[in-house]
Amino acid sequence: MSITVSNQDKFSKSTAQVDEAAVKPLPNSRKIYIQGSRPDIQVPMREISQSDTAISSGAEKNPPIYVYDTSGPYTDSTVKKDIRSGLSAVREKWIEEREDTEVLSGLNSAYSQQRLNDPKLAEMRFNLQRKPRRAKTGMNVSQMYYARRGIITPEMEFIAIRENQRFEVLESQSADIFIRQHPGQNFGASLPKKITPEFVRDEVARGRAIIPANINHPEAEPMIIGRNFLVKINANIGNSALGSSIQEEVEKMTWAIRWGGDTVMDLSTGKNIHETREWIIRNSPVPIGTVPIYQALEKVDGKSEDLTWEIFRDTLIEQAEQGVDYFTIHAGVRLAYVPMTANRLTGIVSRGGSIMAKWCLAHHEESFLYTHFEDICEIMKTYDVSFSLGDGLRPGSIYDANDEAQFAELKTLGELTKIAWKHDVQTMIEGPGHVPMHLIKENMDLQLEHCDEAPFYTLGPLTTDIAPGYDHITSAIGAAMIGWYGTAMLCYVTPKEHLGLPDKDDVKDGIITYKIAAHAADLAKGHPGAQIRDNALSKARFEFRWEDQFNLSLDPDKALQFHDETLPQDGAKVAHFCSMCGPHFCSMKITQDVRDYAAKQGLSEDEALKKGMDEKSLEFKNTGAEIYNKL
Amino acid sequence: MSITVSNQDKFSKSTAQVDEAAVKPLPNSRKIYIQGSRPDIQVPMREISQSDTAISSGAEKNPPIYVYDTSGPYTDSTVKKDIRSGLSAVREKWIEEREDTEVLSGLNSAYSQQRLNDPKLAEMRFNLQRKPRRAKTGMNVSQMYYARRGIITPEMEFIAIRENQRFEVLESQSADIFIRQHPGQNFGASLPKKITPEFVRDEVARGRAIIPANINHPEAEPMIIGRNFLVKINANIGNSALGSSIQEEVEKMTWAIRWGGDTVMDLSTGKNIHETREWIIRNSPVPIGTVPIYQALEKVDGKSEDLTWEIFRDTLIEQAEQGVDYFTIHAGVRLAYVPMTANRLTGIVSRGGSIMAKWCLAHHEESFLYTHFEDICEIMKTYDVSFSLGDGLRPGSIYDANDEAQFAELKTLGELTKIAWKHDVQTMIEGPGHVPMHLIKENMDLQLEHCDEAPFYTLGPLTTDIAPGYDHITSAIGAAMIGWYGTAMLCYVTPKEHLGLPDKDDVKDGIITYKIAAHAADLAKGHPGAQIRDNALSKARFEFRWEDQFNLSLDPDKALQFHDETLPQDGAKVAHFCSMCGPHFCSMKITQDVRDYAAKQGLSEDEALKKGMDEKSLEFKNTGAEIYNKL
Repeated sequence: MSITVSNQDKFSKSTAQVDEAAVKPLPNSRKIYIQGSRPDIQVPMREISQSDTAISSGAEKNPPIYVYDTSGPYTDSTVKKDIRSGLSAVREKWIEEREDTEVLSGLNSAYSQQRLNDPKLAEMRFNLQRKPRRAKTGMNVSQMYYARRGIITPEMEFIAIRENQRFEVLESQSADIFIRQHPGQNFGASLPKKITPEFVRDEVARGRAIIPANINHPEAEPMIIGRNFLVKINANIGNSALGSSIQEEVEKMTWAIRWGGDTVMDLSTGKNIHETREWIIRNSPVPIGTVPIYQALEKVDGKSEDLTWEIFRDTLIEQAEQGVDYFTIHAGVRLAYVPMTANRLTGIVSRGGSIMAKWCLAHHEESFLYTHFEDICEIMKTYDVSFSLGDGLRPGSIYDANDEAQFAELKTLGELTKIAWKHDVQTMIEGPGHVPMHLIKENMDLQLEHCDEAPFYTLGPLTTDIAPGYDHITSAIGAAMIGWYGTAMLCYVTPKEHLGLPDKDDVKDGIITYKIAAHAADLAKGHPGAQIRDNALSKARFEFRWEDQFNLSLDPDKALQFHDETLPQDGAKVAHFCSMCGPHFCSMKITQDVRDYAAKQGLSEDEALKKGMDEKSLEFKNTGAEIYNKL
Repeated sequence: MSITVSNQDKFSKSTAQVDEAAVKPLPNSRKIYIQGSRPDIQVPMREISQSDTAISSGAEKNPPIYVYDTSGPYTDSTVKKDIRSGLSAVREKWIEEREDTEVLSGLNSAYSQQRLNDPKLAEMRFNLQRKPRRAKTGMNVSQMYYARRGIITPEMEFIAIRENQRFEVLESQSADIFIRQHPGQNFGASLPKKITPEFVRDEVARGRAIIPANINHPEAEPMIIGRNFLVKINANIGNSALGSSIQEEVEKMTWAIRWGGDTVMDLSTGKNIHETREWIIRNSPVPIGTVPIYQALEKVDGKSEDLTWEIFRDTLIEQAEQGVDYFTIHAGVRLAYVPMTANRLTGIVSRGGSIMAKWCLAHHEESFLYTHFEDICEIMKTYDVSFSLGDGLRPGSIYDANDEAQFAELKTLGELTKIAWKHDVQTMIEGPGHVPMHLIKENMDLQLEHCDEAPFYTLGPLTTDIAPGYDHITSAIGAAMIGWYGTAMLCYVTPKEHLGLPDKDDVKDGIITYKIAAHAADLAKGHPGAQIRDNALSKARFEFRWEDQFNLSLDPDKALQFHDETLPQDGAKVAHFCSMCGPHFCSMKITQDVRDYAAKQGLSEDEALKKGMDEKSLEFKNTGAEIYNKL
C-alpha cells in the first residue's frame, strides 16, 4: 500500500467502511468475555484452542491458551461492525453512576464550534449523537482522584481481570508444563502473583500506574500503564500535509490494535485533523493519545512564534471533549535548556520540542506550557486526560545520548509530575530516543529517581544510527532492555522511521516487533503467567503440531505463509520434520523417543535412562533404530 | 525467490554464473586497499564518499568514511568475476613461504577420491587445478602455533590493519564530530586504542581470538574472532534434501558477504554436498565453516547408529583438504548428559547434538567425538582448521534455558578447549539458543569461566518463543546483549527460522539484522572508531544530506526505496524536511538556525545563545521567523 496525496480529499462518510482485513477472525481463536462483579464488566480475551498431542496410548489434551486482547469488538464475530456508527460505549454507565460529571449542552472550544458549523465539512463529519461531558464544577474525575480516596472503580476491576490473562485457569489444572517459568529479575518492581482490583487502585494512587480513560471516550476498554503490570506498546498513526485520508487512518488504527497495539497516538498534522481524530476515537477500543501542539500550530499556519496560551488552551478543550485519553505536552523544554542543545550533533529532534524551543527563542520568554502548567492540570482533571510529559530534548543520535540538555529536561519533568499529582492528574513521562545499550539503564534509573516512579514511556531507544529502513529493529533491542529495566510502555518504531510515513505493512511490522520487545521484557521481569504462551508454542513445536505453533504465534498469517513457501502440501503441516533439515536430520524427535521407550517400560523417564541404557541400545537396534516416523 | 526441489538437478558448470545483484557497485563507494609491510598485504575497505555541507560561507567538506568490507573482490570493479574459475589465492605465497606444508599428489580422503572419479559428476565438479596441501609430517600449521612462538604472520598484520577501519585517518584530521564517542562498558575485555599486529598475535596465542584460515582456502581474506576485536557475524546457508541448487548456494554466499557476513557456514544436508562445498569455498573470500557430522550421516544413509569414527575421520580429511576453515564438532554431548534432557520441554534441538545423542543411546557408549578428540586435534593442526565446539544440548525454548544439561556440556567444552590448546588448535565455543534476557549474562559469564576466555559464538539467543516468522528480531535482542557482554561472533537467524529454508531475501534480512546487533554491541563496548559511522550518518541526517544518509546506511537500497515511496521526486532528496512531518513540522532545523545566527554575529554558538536571546528574538521576528527553508 502506498500513500498518495490525492486520497486525502476523497474521503466521504457515505463510503466509509471497516477494513475487512482487520476483522477477519484469527485462526482457531474465539473472543471470550470474563464477567466481573457486575454484569457490565465484561473483560475481553482471545482464547486459542489447541489440538491434542498424539501419544501411544491415544491422545493427550492441550488446554486452550488465553491471551491479552487489544483488538476490541472487531474480532468479535457476534458484533456488527460499522465505522459510521462507532463502537458501543462500554464505560458510559460507570461514568454516569459516579454522578460527578455533567452533559454539556454545547462544545466549549471555539474551534470545535467553528468546525461543527462549517457546512463544507458535513460529508466528512462523524456526527456523534451523544453530547460530551465534563466534571461538574469543582469536581475531579480522574482515576487517580478516585484511587486516592480508596474507591475501586469498575475500570480498575476490569484491568485486574485483564492483566491476569486467566493464569489461574491453568494453575488450577496443575498444568505445570505450561505455567512453569523462570523467576524474573525486576529491578525493584513489585510484581504480585495475582493482580487484584485493590492492587490496581493502590498503584494508581501511588502514581506508579495510569489508566488513560477520558470520560468522553466511553468506547475504550480500560487498560493500565505501569511497571508492575504487563509492558504495553503504543502505535503512532496520523496523516501529514503530504498524505493519507481519514479512511486510511481509521484502517491503520484497527490494523494496529488487531496485532496488539495497547494505545494509539494520532499524530496527524495535515488538513482535517479535527475530523480525522473524531473518526479514530469513535472507533477505538484503546486509549488515544495526541500531541495538541501540532494542531495548535496548524491553527497559526505553522508559525511557532504566533502560538499563544489561548489557542493552545482551546485546543486542549477541543480534544478533551472529543475524548483524547492522554496528551503529550512538552512542558519541560525551558528557555534555559535550549542553549544546551547548540553543540549537539543533531540538535532538537522532537517536533513538539522544536516548536516550543522556537517559540522560546522568538519571544525570549519561558514556555507557556511551563508557566501555565497548573492551568493545564485544571483541564486534565475535568475530563480525566492523562499527561504524557514529552521529552522535547531527547537525543536524536547516539552522539547526543544522555547529555546535559536531556537530563535537565528530565529533572523538570519530575518537578512537573509532582505538580500534576497535587491535582490528582495521572502522569507518565516520555523517554528517548537514540541511546547505545550501555547507557540505557542510566535513563531508567534517573527517570525513577527524578519522577518518583511515574510510568516511563519510551521511544525505542534506538541502539545505533546506521540502519535507516530497519529502525524497528535497532530500537527493539533498546526497547526490550528498557522494558526489562522498568519502562511501562514502549512507543513503536516502524521500518519507515526517518524515511517516510508508515503504511499498513509498516504498522504491522512495528507492532509485532514491539510486541516481541514488550513480551521479552515481561519474561525477563517474571510477570506471572508471561511464559505460558512461550511454553505452549514450544510444546507445539516440539510435538510437530504445526497449526498450533502458527496459531499461538504473534503473527499466524506470516508463520503459515513462511512454512508453506518451502513445504506447501497440507500433509507437511502434520509432518514430523520441517523443511530446514528434511526427514533425516530432524533434531526434535530424540527426546520423544526416550519418552516413548520409558512409557512402554512403565518407567519414569529418568529411571528408564538410568536403568536401561543397555536394554535400550538393544531395543533401538531391534526396532530398526528408526526415530524419524514416516508419515 | 522461492526454492523448489527441481532446481537441484539443473545445475551445470557451463551455465554457472556470478549473481549480478551481488556485484553491483554500492552507491558512492569504492573499494580501496591499504598496503601492509609488504606489497602482497592488501587490506580491502569500502570508502564511502560524502557530499559537502552547505553553509552560509560556502561549503564544508565532509571526509570519506571507511567501513569494514567483507564482500571480497565481488565489489571491486577492476576484477573480472567468474565463479567457474574462483577467486585468486591471496594467501598462497604466505603459506608457501612458511615451508611447513607439502603439496599432495592426491587426495587423502577415500570419499573425495570416489567423487573425483565419478564421471556422472563431471558436469557439476568445480575442477580446481591447484593441489591441496597439508602440514609436513610433525609440523603444526595453525595460526595459534605461530602466535605462541612469537611469529607475526602476514595474516595477523592484515587483520590489524583491517580492524582499525582507518580510524587514524579521521583522528589525524582532528575531525572531532566524527570520532568522538561514548566510553564503553566492556566487562573485562581489553580493547586497545589501536590494533597492532603484535596485539593480534598475543590474543591468538592466549586463545582469546582465532583466525579461521585453512591452508587449503588461500582465497580467504584473513579475519579474526575474539572479544577484543569487532563483533563478527556468521550467515548459515546450505541446501537440504528438499531444496536448493549449487548455483543458488553460491549466490546466497556472495549475497551474504555483500551485506556484511564475516563467515559463512555451509550446512548442506542434501545431495552433492561435496561438490556444493567446493564451489562455495573456491568463490568465498570469507572463512567457511561446516558441521562434518551432517555429511558423515549422509554417508550412512541417515542412520546415526551406523556412524563410525572411521567414516567421520575420512569426512574431516575430505573437508579439510577442500579448505573448510572451521568445523562445528559436538564433542561435548556425552552419554551421561543425555538423560538430563528427558524432562525438557523441547529436548535436544541441535541437529548435531541429536545425532550424537542417538548414537550414544544406540551403542550405550561414550561419543566417538569425545573419545577421539585428540585424534581430531591432530587433523585440525595439519590444515589449520579451527574448532567451533558445538553446543549440542543448547536450549530450544525459554523453558529449557540455562538448565543442567546445557551447563554440563559447557563445562565439558571448557575441558576440550584446554586439550585443543595443548595441540595449539584454535578453538571457539558455540552458545545458545533460546534464553530470556535476564538469563543471558549467566551464559557469557560461565563460558568465560569454564572455557578460559576462548571466543564465544552464539546463535541469538532468542529472547522469546512466541514469534515464528520474526525470529531474526527475537534473537537480535539477545545477540546484541550477549555481544556487548563479550560474545565474539553472532550466528544470524533469519525470519524463516523454525519455518523453512531461507531464500535470498531472508539471508539479507538476517545479515542486516545481525550487523545491527553486532554494531550495537561494538558501540556499547566502546570499540575505537565504532561510532564514526553513526556520527557521520547522523550528521548527514541533521543536514538533510539524504543521499549521504542512504549511502552510509547498512542497506542503501532499502533506505532509498522507503524514502521514495512517500517522496519520490528527486527534489525531495535535497529537501529540508521529510515526509513524516512535512514542511511545517520539521524538527531538525532549530539548532541549525541557532548556529546560523551565531555565525552571522561572529560569535560562538554558546555565546550567541547566552548573550543574544533578546536580540535573537528580534532578529527572528524581523526575518519572518521562517526556519523551514522552501525549496
